[in-house]
Amino acid sequence: MRAIGLIALLFSCLWPAAAYTAELRGTGDLGIIVERASGSVVVIDTSRHSIIHRVKGLGDLSHASAVFSRDQRYAFVFGRDGGLTKVDLLKGEISGRTVQAGNSIGGAISDDGKLVAVSNYKPGGVKVFDAKTLDLIADIPAISGKGGERSKTVGLVDAPGRRFIFSLYDAGEIWIADFSAPGAPKLTKFGDAGKLPYDALITGDGRHYIAGLFGEDGLTHIDLWADKPETQTILKDYGRGDRKLPVYKMPHLEGWAKAGDRFILPAVGHHQLLAVDTRTFEHVGTVKLHGQPIFAVARPDGRHAWVNFALPHNDTIQVVDIPTLKVIHEFKPGPAALHMEFTPRGHEVWLSVRDADKVHIYDARTFAKKGELGVTKPSGIFFTARATRTGL
Amino acid sequence: MRAIGLIALLFSCLWPAAAYTAELRGTGDLGIIVERASGSVVVIDTSRHSIIHRVKGLGDLSHASAVFSRDQRYAFVFGRDGGLTKVDLLKGEISGRTVQAGNSIGGAISDDGKLVAVSNYKPGGVKVFDAKTLDLIADIPAISGKGGERSKTVGLVDAPGRRFIFSLYDAGEIWIADFSAPGAPKLTKFGDAGKLPYDALITGDGRHYIAGLFGEDGLTHIDLWADKPETQTILKDYGRGDRKLPVYKMPHLEGWAKAGDRFILPAVGHHQLLAVDTRTFEHVGTVKLHGQPIFAVARPDGRHAWVNFALPHNDTIQVVDIPTLKVIHEFKPGPAALHMEFTPRGHEVWLSVRDADKVHIYDARTFAKKGELGVTKPSGIFFTARATRTGL
Repeated sequence: MRAIGLIALLFSCLWPAAAYTAELRGTGDLGIIVERASGSVVVIDTSRHSIIHRVKGLGDLSHASAVFSRDQRYAFVFGRDGGLTKVDLLKGEISGRTVQAGNSIGGAISDDGKLVAVSNYKPGGVKVFDAKTLDLIADIPAISGKGGERSKTVGLVDAPGRRFIFSLYDAGEIWIADFSAPGAPKLTKFGDAGKLPYDALITGDGRHYIAGLFGEDGLTHIDLWADKPETQTILKDYGRGDRKLPVYKMPHLEGWAKAGDRFILPAVGHHQLLAVDTRTFEHVGTVKLHGQPIFAVARPDGRHAWVNFALPHNDTIQVVDIPTLKVIHEFKPGPAALHMEFTPRGHEVWLSVRDADKVHIYDARTFAKKGELGVTKPSGIFFTARATRTGL
Repeated sequence: MRAIGLIALLFSCLWPAAAYTAELRGTGDLGIIVERASGSVVVIDTSRHSIIHRVKGLGDLSHASAVFSRDQRYAFVFGRDGGLTKVDLLKGEISGRTVQAGNSIGGAISDDGKLVAVSNYKPGGVKVFDAKTLDLIADIPAISGKGGERSKTVGLVDAPGRRFIFSLYDAGEIWIADFSAPGAPKLTKFGDAGKLPYDALITGDGRHYIAGLFGEDGLTHIDLWADKPETQTILKDYGRGDRKLPVYKMPHLEGWAKAGDRFILPAVGHHQLLAVDTRTFEHVGTVKLHGQPIFAVARPDGRHAWVNFALPHNDTIQVVDIPTLKVIHEFKPGPAALHMEFTPRGHEVWLSVRDADKVHIYDARTFAKKGELGVTKPSGIFFTARATRTGL
């Protein structure tokens, strides 16, 4: 009995020690890949090209995006069903979750890392949460002065100075919510932001907010550095024109790439990329492509953009050289090559090949394939380095 | 006896459990601050504004710099005495160290995180080490074709594609060392790089290498994206002219700031900053300042630059608005305000006040002081987010 007791005691002592031997690791080279059909994400190590965790229970991820805490330890995953899930990348588990709306399209994190905002369709508006606890800090219903129902909110981004900017799809407005002072956010509303803004982006310097319009041609631009920021139209001919194009076929503004002196953006309804000067917003060139581009993703140095395509060409990737606007490489990774992410210094690009259940890894200069991971119905790939950049 | 035995057994079981209860943390918000007089660095948590470790034994840090591993777990600290020290930021200890030359001035890490290069004065040349083990991978003596002794090497930076670029001070050359293929690096040598290049920078897109010249006016520029890169002179009037200025009074090229469309750089021997267009390299404006500027550090969005000064004005900081080139703020943090570092999204700036043994933390928009840390003779401040950017 004494022997059994001693063995039991020894075992009970060793168990806690074993539980703490989790490997110490940095978080700067981690990331997540969304498994869109199973409500799960895999946590990946981009240095070792390996999957370190699979985390389940994130709800409907058929359309999902993510942002990261400033320490790069946590991902905040925004799901289509209004779920906001905080994932601990080190432990490989959910550390917080709230289903905060009926239908939701994306989110953002403030520059100081303290607030997470979510952009909701139903009910229309933006909710803001404490990044640490997920407590609700603010609820901003998207009710315009023009009357009518609450608008779906789209194009939510963070801006320097603890601000969020978003567009009201139905009312055609753009709002800035400034959380830099204690208490309720200070709202600045631009009531004339064009017809049916469906998406937006902010440039990496936090200066330019650009919204795509579904209800008319052109885009709406706000220069946030102006003494009195105001909405202006740029690229007046950019749009669907008279074509009957459903809104989900309009280009994602996160499909724009900033490459040095140029924005590179998918044309609407054409097999082309447009190049736009970043100082003047004038159209300066065109690249003819293999199909209708969905995403143009810039290599971090801005020298190349990798482009993927809508059906029926979504098995193909083209690489465009930005100074010459020429296609310099083309390859077929597999069926439904849908999302790309570059490592922060641009040495590799990772690519989801959804219908092959694979993520491929390529050398970003030689285009050689370096490896692959088995991921089930992979969609979005998000690396923790996004925590260091505005608008991502 | 049995009781004592049981207690001893229990104690010996609990001890390992206690040893593993080190707090799990992310590494994205960490940093180091050099304590220049004591051969030590402090590891800081920029979210909590706290010191988490002090690490000693790094040799002569009177002039020191650092780069970070891609996972942001390790700092590689380059000391004046030729020491290369790998510091584990999580454990707060030295995980590797080599004194690899007699006198050294800086280092860099490759874009894939696998190679660490060090730039040596004595003997003149560059050594390259395996980032994981610190094994020597390559030794590149700075022997030019012009004969003579080995040159001091300066202006060492990383460039996309597993390359390093550096200048030979005595011989007036610039070399590119390309490690993208297995085996010995492929060297490209620019034999006519001006007289006595004393420092250099590479732009964040990895496109422009710019070297300052001590032996003549003007700077040497290489556009790395050209089909056939070559050296060119830019800013022909920039320099010390006929003044008898010692080389250590020449501006550090890491004192240049890229702010949107402009480079902001200290003038030589004048109380001025110069603004230079990033597309044309032409001088487009001037800011009159309080003293001789040493470092102009851009807020990450490029809207402001914070500037510090040489003696006798090194108790003062001025903030310049870049679009208007006007000084918009001035304050006196204390004696020897020598180094500044912004958080990656620019919400805070940290400032070493060496002779007050303090590091101050400021809100980068309101300029309010948010806190301070006690650090002994602080000099360089380096945040782990540098791992995500070329040239840092």
